[in-house]
Amino acid sequence: MTTVRQATFDLFRAHGMTTIFGNPGSTELPMLAEFPEDFTYVLGLQELVVMGMADGYAQATGRPTHVNLHTAPGVGNAVGGIFNAQANKSPLLITAGQQVRPQITMEANLTNRDAAVGPQPYVKWSHEPPRAQDVPAALARAIHHATLPPRGPAFVSIPMDDWTQEVDADRTANALARRVTGRTAPDPRALTALAARLSSARNPVLVIGPDVDASGGWDAAVALAEKQRLPVWATPATGGSRIGFPESHPQFLGALPPAIGPIGETLKGHDLILVVGSTVFPYYPYVPGPLLAEGSELVAITSDLGEAARAPMGEAIVGDVALALERLGELVSESDRPVPEPRPAPAAPADADPMSGSQAMAALAQAWPQDAIAVLEAPSSTLAFRNRLRISRPGSYFFCASGGLGYGIAAGVGVQLASPDRPVVCVLGEGSAQYGITALWTAVAYRIPVTFLILRNEEYMILKWFATLEQVTGAPGLDLPGLDVAAIARAYGMPAREVSDPQELVAALHEDISAQDGPRLIQARIASGMWLD
Amino acid sequence: MTTVRQATFDLFRAHGMTTIFGNPGSTELPMLAEFPEDFTYVLGLQELVVMGMADGYAQATGRPTHVNLHTAPGVGNAVGGIFNAQANKSPLLITAGQQVRPQITMEANLTNRDAAVGPQPYVKWSHEPPRAQDVPAALARAIHHATLPPRGPAFVSIPMDDWTQEVDADRTANALARRVTGRTAPDPRALTALAARLSSARNPVLVIGPDVDASGGWDAAVALAEKQRLPVWATPATGGSRIGFPESHPQFLGALPPAIGPIGETLKGHDLILVVGSTVFPYYPYVPGPLLAEGSELVAITSDLGEAARAPMGEAIVGDVALALERLGELVSESDRPVPEPRPAPAAPADADPMSGSQAMAALAQAWPQDAIAVLEAPSSTLAFRNRLRISRPGSYFFCASGGLGYGIAAGVGVQLASPDRPVVCVLGEGSAQYGITALWTAVAYRIPVTFLILRNEEYMILKWFATLEQVTGAPGLDLPGLDVAAIARAYGMPAREVSDPQELVAALHEDISAQDGPRLIQARIASGMWLD
Repeated sequence: MTTVRQATFDLFRAHGMTTIFGNPGSTELPMLAEFPEDFTYVLGLQELVVMGMADGYAQATGRPTHVNLHTAPGVGNAVGGIFNAQANKSPLLITAGQQVRPQITMEANLTNRDAAVGPQPYVKWSHEPPRAQDVPAALARAIHHATLPPRGPAFVSIPMDDWTQEVDADRTANALARRVTGRTAPDPRALTALAARLSSARNPVLVIGPDVDASGGWDAAVALAEKQRLPVWATPATGGSRIGFPESHPQFLGALPPAIGPIGETLKGHDLILVVGSTVFPYYPYVPGPLLAEGSELVAITSDLGEAARAPMGEAIVGDVALALERLGELVSESDRPVPEPRPAPAAPADADPMSGSQAMAALAQAWPQDAIAVLEAPSSTLAFRNRLRISRPGSYFFCASGGLGYGIAAGVGVQLASPDRPVVCVLGEGSAQYGITALWTAVAYRIPVTFLILRNEEYMILKWFATLEQVTGAPGLDLPGLDVAAIARAYGMPAREVSDPQELVAALHEDISAQDGPRLIQARIASGMWLD
Repeated sequence: MTTVRQATFDLFRAHGMTTIFGNPGSTELPMLAEFPEDFTYVLGLQELVVMGMADGYAQATGRPTHVNLHTAPGVGNAVGGIFNAQANKSPLLITAGQQVRPQITMEANLTNRDAAVGPQPYVKWSHEPPRAQDVPAALARAIHHATLPPRGPAFVSIPMDDWTQEVDADRTANALARRVTGRTAPDPRALTALAARLSSARNPVLVIGPDVDASGGWDAAVALAEKQRLPVWATPATGGSRIGFPESHPQFLGALPPAIGPIGETLKGHDLILVVGSTVFPYYPYVPGPLLAEGSELVAITSDLGEAARAPMGEAIVGDVALALERLGELVSESDRPVPEPRPAPAAPADADPMSGSQAMAALAQAWPQDAIAVLEAPSSTLAFRNRLRISRPGSYFFCASGGLGYGIAAGVGVQLASPDRPVVCVLGEGSAQYGITALWTAVAYRIPVTFLILRNEEYMILKWFATLEQVTGAPGLDLPGLDVAAIARAYGMPAREVSDPQELVAALHEDISAQDGPRLIQARIASGMWLD
């Protein structure tokens, strides 16, 4: 006889899902029993951390990834991470244990009441199978939902008495054998018409979003931009969870500002704005103005039906971003427009004591190995990072698109697990680091060689900056005295040091990034300020 | 003109809600602007911690308490804490910022899409007011929902551009003036009939749940038990978030076991089982058996309509538990039944090296000041705590009824803030402590003199125990090497030490509990094991 547990692990094998991220409880033990040797279980000490690790891993591998949580309280602690995963389009299968079926109706302790409601509205599908025999097919369905565009989390609640039940052999065999291809090419006629508009436009511009990286569209984006001599912007950094175009390319102009008025202003004068693989746009804060300047038209290409429907202006064409870029590149003519003026290399940052965030990012750029991957959660230094690092390789940048915190350390761990041959550097503020601080323990326990760079400014600087913008004074809770992340890291068993000048930081980064024996942490004291370049 | 913000702070004043727990983001800044001097803002570094602090504070003060969170990601991180708060019947007003109204439909960054859905199904009411002018009345309504029985969390999402709008004077004045009395007495005829059954029962028994403490029913419970010479049990420890009867009372027999079969077996022979202020019952794990033994009848008194509806057996009478106990005490006759045999004092625990959890709890009992309050989150030592401390004063014990972790440190901080004249001792396992570890920082930053006792066993012992019970072997993720909470506490600036023998522990507890200069932490290495007595 085949049990639900056996069929489930076979299903996971069939999808290459042999690394499981979790925090176990008693309701999960029947699933975890006799854990197969070809699987790896990565333990996180709190559920937001478990989610972040899986999110990073799923994005970096491109594969659906399984997260196992503890009934209602575990799912509850993870909801922020589920919110992040949908914003990051991370294909996650989230499962949680549940009371035994005979104790659900009476709502015995640890019952996940209305289990399918808990992770709403952030999951693509949410289900508790009505019978044990339906568990493998439900998990298969959830994996398909998670991987179809737009990718994102799907949830299945599994009563703990189901695992040892016998499956329905025919249904299970079919569920395990199913494969679903979700990549679609945009309507060829729409692309042909768009190519003609692009070729004949007076002054078109290209805006690159995170899905260009996720869909494997870098080369096609560069080819199209070069053939058409397009100036290229990245979507605003706040929503740019991945980088999809070489930021050192001479046609690349930077990341768009994030608000309505400034975007309209920045793109003024372009008769055709082509946006690929981005929401239009991840606006924040609210600075009113025209959505599009007079005389501008906007066309967005996206594989996300929601993005297509909700954009407040312009046209949208639905389909895979990489396929669209490739086909457009074939269809357009070679342009003889003038090539846009390349932006200058970053200027040397001004000296400050303690160093500025710009100096810290310049030091990081100096120590940066070409094949390194960045995971960034340092709100007040994000723009300085983008300007000074100018990431120019695919799959090299991960940032939480949701605006949620608690992602960085954990995602760094997940990305490093997924990319053992590339160094991962995780840059955080000391405030951001606190939301998922226990991921440091997982990095130590599993000897995962991430380099953490903590920028310590003793405040929620991004909030002070927003307060100025919103003309808010006298708000409490914006200072963070006495948060020493290096000391916390050492307490979790991680080698950690604090540096105070840029040269020392460069040396420490060189040393720690090349070390492969486990995680290390560098804390840099930085001055108060928003670091925009 | 009166703004929404002014009216809101007046509303909070009218309900005594001048301590606000929060983790701010940019969407909350307009509410926090020019924060009034008669209010206190308590900053938590992650939302689960913010929830736990407010939950402890609300329970210990008995007042509705305001939690302010950061739009969708903040609410997401808090959902586990919202789940805990509903299980603990904690009257919380939860608010979150939201995008400006002109950017919600386009789902700009940090939009709380379907804001009212996010905290479901764990809130009593969830709402985003359709106009700025409706915010004060919506908050008033949420406060009433939170405080009506059963108490619990209610949620309001507030667009950030609402705070500076002008209110509707008449509606706001009426909303601020409203008072709602939710306490109800059970049907007098039902109580009269129950009193007669109790008086004439052959061998009745009383089971005390957490709402006896929350409703102020201790004295009435003792009077009824003594007049009727009833043996008294506490509801199972897993669901017993508060203690409602003196556990050193000669008629008190202990906490019921938590599973169906064992409870039926324990209460066998009683013709009438009177359960007050408890769910019937917080069963976990699943051990089948008859719900009630042959010849037993069960009557539950509860102010929670959900508890009344969902109990799998017996009768239920709805109404306030304290009022019911008082009235029953008047109605019953003085009984001449034999007084039940008192249970023995706890035996001296066996010596072990490192010490056992029972030894640690015996040391805690030795150092325990009569007026101390316990906050407990140490799953493998919960029963040893209950047996050896035998808490016998009202409002002296807080435990998370939901089965969720991440509550203890934070709730300790909240309870201590609410009870400045009583020492608070917070007992946790080193694994439990990780889910909300950053609450240590708040304790330090606000100099809140909680004494933390960490039991360090390098494992999730409760899971190993459940694994044995469920006949599960070979599960991963149950060991916790290298988690030194004393080191982590020191990194957050808290004096902390590790002790290894019971006498040293007694001395350390004496010293730290009497210190009032801020929080302190003691880590006790304990042996592997479940400590049941």
